[in-house]
Amino acid sequence: MDGIWLADGQSTFRDDLPRFELPADEVRIRPTLMGVCRTDLELMAGYYPFTGVLGHEFVGIVEEGPTEWLGQRVVGEINAICGRCHSCQSGRGNHCLERTVLGIVGRDGCFAESFLLPQRNLWIVPDGVLDECAVFTEPLAAAMRIPEQVDLCPGDRCLVVGDGRLGQLVARVLARRNLTPMVLGRHERKLSLLEKYPIESTTDEAKIEAGGFDVAIECTGNASGFETARRALRPLGTLVMKSTYAGQLHCDASALVVDEIQLVGSRCGPFAPALAALSDGSIDPRDLIDDEFTLEDGVAGLRRGAERGVLKVLLRPS
Amino acid sequence: MDGIWLADGQSTFRDDLPRFELPADEVRIRPTLMGVCRTDLELMAGYYPFTGVLGHEFVGIVEEGPTEWLGQRVVGEINAICGRCHSCQSGRGNHCLERTVLGIVGRDGCFAESFLLPQRNLWIVPDGVLDECAVFTEPLAAAMRIPEQVDLCPGDRCLVVGDGRLGQLVARVLARRNLTPMVLGRHERKLSLLEKYPIESTTDEAKIEAGGFDVAIECTGNASGFETARRALRPLGTLVMKSTYAGQLHCDASALVVDEIQLVGSRCGPFAPALAALSDGSIDPRDLIDDEFTLEDGVAGLRRGAERGVLKVLLRPS
Repeated sequence: MDGIWLADGQSTFRDDLPRFELPADEVRIRPTLMGVCRTDLELMAGYYPFTGVLGHEFVGIVEEGPTEWLGQRVVGEINAICGRCHSCQSGRGNHCLERTVLGIVGRDGCFAESFLLPQRNLWIVPDGVLDECAVFTEPLAAAMRIPEQVDLCPGDRCLVVGDGRLGQLVARVLARRNLTPMVLGRHERKLSLLEKYPIESTTDEAKIEAGGFDVAIECTGNASGFETARRALRPLGTLVMKSTYAGQLHCDASALVVDEIQLVGSRCGPFAPALAALSDGSIDPRDLIDDEFTLEDGVAGLRRGAERGVLKVLLRPS
Repeated sequence: MDGIWLADGQSTFRDDLPRFELPADEVRIRPTLMGVCRTDLELMAGYYPFTGVLGHEFVGIVEEGPTEWLGQRVVGEINAICGRCHSCQSGRGNHCLERTVLGIVGRDGCFAESFLLPQRNLWIVPDGVLDECAVFTEPLAAAMRIPEQVDLCPGDRCLVVGDGRLGQLVARVLARRNLTPMVLGRHERKLSLLEKYPIESTTDEAKIEAGGFDVAIECTGNASGFETARRALRPLGTLVMKSTYAGQLHCDASALVVDEIQLVGSRCGPFAPALAALSDGSIDPRDLIDDEFTLEDGVAGLRRGAERGVLKVLLRPS
């Protein structure tokens, strides 16, 4: 079987991957379109140990499983949970202590001819939603995690730090809720994509008023982005950490205490509203697609996704 | 006028301090008992720039001001606010952008024969409350800030990291709310003070189950305490930062994101419930008093307060 294999930080295209038997309660999915995410690149950089098939963003067709699933066009949540641990029993399934995570932790990912996922993780894609939109369901859901965690009110001044894949989706999610986010980025080309919403943006950090924002969402994953977000917050403001960080983060913790800042770590989000937004067209992420590669050229696709200034790179079955 | 003066990190007893004229809306207070706080020691260590009279924990008698205040026994909130800035007008007076803070920012403190505070900051001490209890109102209020910020429910597993002055008060505040905190400390003598409540405690970090707590309250102000608190939290748990930190804090921010931990900076708290708890006797902090010095010997008192293992040191007018 073809797929993109990661071992020791090296990703390679392989045509000899084993095709495992289908476990109970799982289905086999043939992806029709796949997305490259920063997490894939971080796994390659060795920030977390993972050996296996890469990839967790996909839309695909169920090719093996119970009759009712066969042939369905699906997207899928990436955390495969045990259902029995303390987290699962407390309604925190995404934080299952025994979880595997598609292409990230202990489970082969979707950059392959086919891959496995529990039935409970699947969402059927509404008919009107193109594959090119549906492939964004997982990262869009991650952006939609924010309003689940933070009580965002009309009039709240929101800052999005970062104009990359995630910052773009976060800004659109906020705008869709009638908030008027300000996006601080580094690339005029990326920021120009926000004009049509319209979402205000700038590349000039000097224009970000210190203490001028109620909520700041850090989407860069670097310490300077974190510090920018913190400085922009008013006392008692909320800083959402939407990106992971390589290594240790150094921060001025006393300022967090004195200003009673609330920090919220934020990871995977709800698929239902993400599919709804893609379905009603209120979020159309296709302008974020910068390039497409075949699965066979997936390693080149990953390299392209790591280039500065590049937004979404898709992979398509060879 | 006598008082403890801080300049260039050196505290000295002076008998030549000026007695300023009373500004509008303020009163002059003659302290009858004062408390040494870690913040005083941090100011001496130069973590924040401050030149002036030290001290912000007190109980005292109003000796100059409007007739209705004269002779009243009072405690006082330490943030003197403008009432006009964006923070004040948004109900975040404690975060007034123009504030002075008693003995901390731009306002002479209470380690003196007398000092000034706005009338709006004053709380009359109920008759039954001894000076030795009332002097704890400010730090007790700071501990009571936590339930204002975090929705603590019976059954929540709470960890208090630190057995010092603040950790002790925090643990008692939690126990008073029928929570059953676990306190991790370093001093058997300090932890033994918690037995009578009864509050469980340990000096053995190995007994703190990783991921075993819903809420962790960091009261040590050092990075290892922060890391201990983080590791103790379940996914989606809450880490309250109750102490300030010298310099930068280094933390594993990716773990905060992956586990969707919520961090809450926490500072000054509500005086009304603190006075109520001192008045109804549900919190009696007198067992935390380790030593007492005269104001004239206040510099020795500050030194004593900085010794390892020492809890509260009080100063009394000479």
